Amino acid sequence: MDRNSVGQVTPKKFTFAQKGDPMVLESGRTLGPVDIVYETYGEPDDTRSNAVLICHALSGDAHAAGYHDVHDKRTGWWDTMIGPGKAFDTRKFWVICSNIIGGCKGSTGPSSINPETGEPYGLDFPIITIGDMVDTQKRLIDHLGISRLHAIVGGSMGGFQVLEWSLRYPEMVRSAISIAFCARLSAQGIAFNAVGRSAITSDPNWQNGHYYGEPGPQQGLAVARMIGHITYLSEFLMDSKFGRRLQSADRLSYDFSSEFAVESYLNHKGSTFTERFDANSYLYITKAMDYFDISRAYGPLAEAFAKATARYLFVTYSTDWLFPTEQSREIVRAMLSTGRDVSFVEIESGYGHDAFLIEVEKLDRILSSFLCGIVERDPTGESDERFVCQ
Amino acid sequence: MDRNSVGQVTPKKFTFAQKGDPMVLESGRTLGPVDIVYETYGEPDDTRSNAVLICHALSGDAHAAGYHDVHDKRTGWWDTMIGPGKAFDTRKFWVICSNIIGGCKGSTGPSSINPETGEPYGLDFPIITIGDMVDTQKRLIDHLGISRLHAIVGGSMGGFQVLEWSLRYPEMVRSAISIAFCARLSAQGIAFNAVGRSAITSDPNWQNGHYYGEPGPQQGLAVARMIGHITYLSEFLMDSKFGRRLQSADRLSYDFSSEFAVESYLNHKGSTFTERFDANSYLYITKAMDYFDISRAYGPLAEAFAKATARYLFVTYSTDWLFPTEQSREIVRAMLSTGRDVSFVEIESGYGHDAFLIEVEKLDRILSSFLCGIVERDPTGESDERFVCQ
Repeated sequence: MDRNSVGQVTPKKFTFAQKGDPMVLESGRTLGPVDIVYETYGEPDDTRSNAVLICHALSGDAHAAGYHDVHDKRTGWWDTMIGPGKAFDTRKFWVICSNIIGGCKGSTGPSSINPETGEPYGLDFPIITIGDMVDTQKRLIDHLGISRLHAIVGGSMGGFQVLEWSLRYPEMVRSAISIAFCARLSAQGIAFNAVGRSAITSDPNWQNGHYYGEPGPQQGLAVARMIGHITYLSEFLMDSKFGRRLQSADRLSYDFSSEFAVESYLNHKGSTFTERFDANSYLYITKAMDYFDISRAYGPLAEAFAKATARYLFVTYSTDWLFPTEQSREIVRAMLSTGRDVSFVEIESGYGHDAFLIEVEKLDRILSSFLCGIVERDPTGESDERFVCQ
Repeated sequence: MDRNSVGQVTPKKFTFAQKGDPMVLESGRTLGPVDIVYETYGEPDDTRSNAVLICHALSGDAHAAGYHDVHDKRTGWWDTMIGPGKAFDTRKFWVICSNIIGGCKGSTGPSSINPETGEPYGLDFPIITIGDMVDTQKRLIDHLGISRLHAIVGGSMGGFQVLEWSLRYPEMVRSAISIAFCARLSAQGIAFNAVGRSAITSDPNWQNGHYYGEPGPQQGLAVARMIGHITYLSEFLMDSKFGRRLQSADRLSYDFSSEFAVESYLNHKGSTFTERFDANSYLYITKAMDYFDISRAYGPLAEAFAKATARYLFVTYSTDWLFPTEQSREIVRAMLSTGRDVSFVEIESGYGHDAFLIEVEKLDRILSSFLCGIVERDPTGESDERFVCQ
């Protein structure tokens, strides 16, 4: 066990929007009650001003660090970044990670019971947006008695939530860190998501979303995940990791088995994903990603960020072709044009989009420096001395 | 009607490997009888030395130019390049295009009748390779009384066939033109094909390939085609053609309809493809592409091309990310290292991989010059004066 681990943690649940007071979503539809599952690491300081909110990506969950049970083989998904002495140093920060609505990891989603029918929502679950995810997090942050977050951070779709937070609730965000992200999906990004959804909805076991208690569209979900995985890895990484290597033979098999190592890898990734993820959640979350568009909601980028007050840090990866650096540069340029406080780092990495989960050493250094810098430079004077870096 | 059209054409069929004398494939399995459907445009000269063989890509066929019926709405797939006054000038050249085996456009493939069972082959059809496709073309070229082809040309998988021809039968190839091609698929290329195949084979209607006479895996095939289409278009083209535009509304629909224009486009491409293509052929042909590997068959690139005698022309497109220019440069460098005769042009184009079918003007000029150049410079002295360019 990593001696800098946060140790054993227990997920908590916060429920709001109870009967008679549902949450109104961006679509105009309502949802309630809403459960939010979350975890916390470290402790709040006296004024609860040391909170850091971690926003997870498509298939993530609230379990960002530590372990639930001493027998767990895997730690939380960003355990490398959260703990004593790590970037999100739990000796300084009160780190919170909550699970998005629409998912299948405890927060309310399409597999939750619809109180109106007593059955799982399925496709009766309303379409949700990144803004709706942020609104639920806001309710949780209020509930935890936090008036301003020291930092909000997230990679990929987590980075979308960070941007949305900083524009929707600017007064609550001291610093915003988006990693491997964009301000809106390109046509190609939408295309990949759309094909993934087609794979699911064309699986006859999908049954228009009402498959709970039955096998479900596992094959379609596996194909969707395989498509996603291609976009998460760089071409460089795929070539160096797999190349044209055969999985278990020297000679071509002349049949349709998954004989190339890269085929076998993708098949494995696809099938294991179906054991831990709900196909309807995949539909809802990718749709939320497609809808995310800073400019549609807040106007042209320069105008959108003119109202923002957070200190921003943007981190991209040189071989991320899903959300290429150039898309982030566009946001940086727009922000600089109106004098926003933004730092920008492109990390040289061969790992593609997934680098933020894999290549953590450089990221750790950058985030540590940035989080310290915030405290030292914080013009509000709210800083707790304990934050100042050694 | 284009006044430079080749006009009305009639497909022809050549059958070989009759009972008792089957064709031996690279896998060691046999196939016979083998039908090859082909078309010809222009006329042979006295010595049949003016023949140009066109090799088609994944979903192409033998119908490269002209029309079959005066009521046809569409001409052959490369009609822009073949005809009087065009790059493949039918006043000079005898142009031949044959349909690959394994396909579903008339040549023998998985939907053909297996003489042993009287039923369609389905998955009893043997795995075929690019080399096998070339071998069947060689039989056709022999049958047509051609001892040496003036040129062989093809884009994408057609370009693979061109390379294979030039190495397998060097004495029969005066010039070889590969467009938007590579010497072997990268891991990412294999990955995209593998996911497409998974989409088909996980469709319950696929029934292990024996679906003829029944609905067939149309949904899986549509998803496979959608994946393919993403790789055929450049990100630039997708953004300029579709961007984040909605198909038929100003407001988000907040449902799972194909509301983005790019979604709608891909859905359309996917579903129309199922009307004209056989899912098993998609499996066999993509597998042949995955297997294609000049180095596996002929050694490192420099060594492989050391025996080649053709004059080569390689054309790539700046935004083709399926077969990027850099992969072709690698071949060019290897060829130059052993003094091969190779010309190389990267065309600036926003159209991505599909540019060879779309942006024909520049390509037409380059091919015309190259084809004339061959004749003027031909050291063999076999040139017919009629070829010399004006």
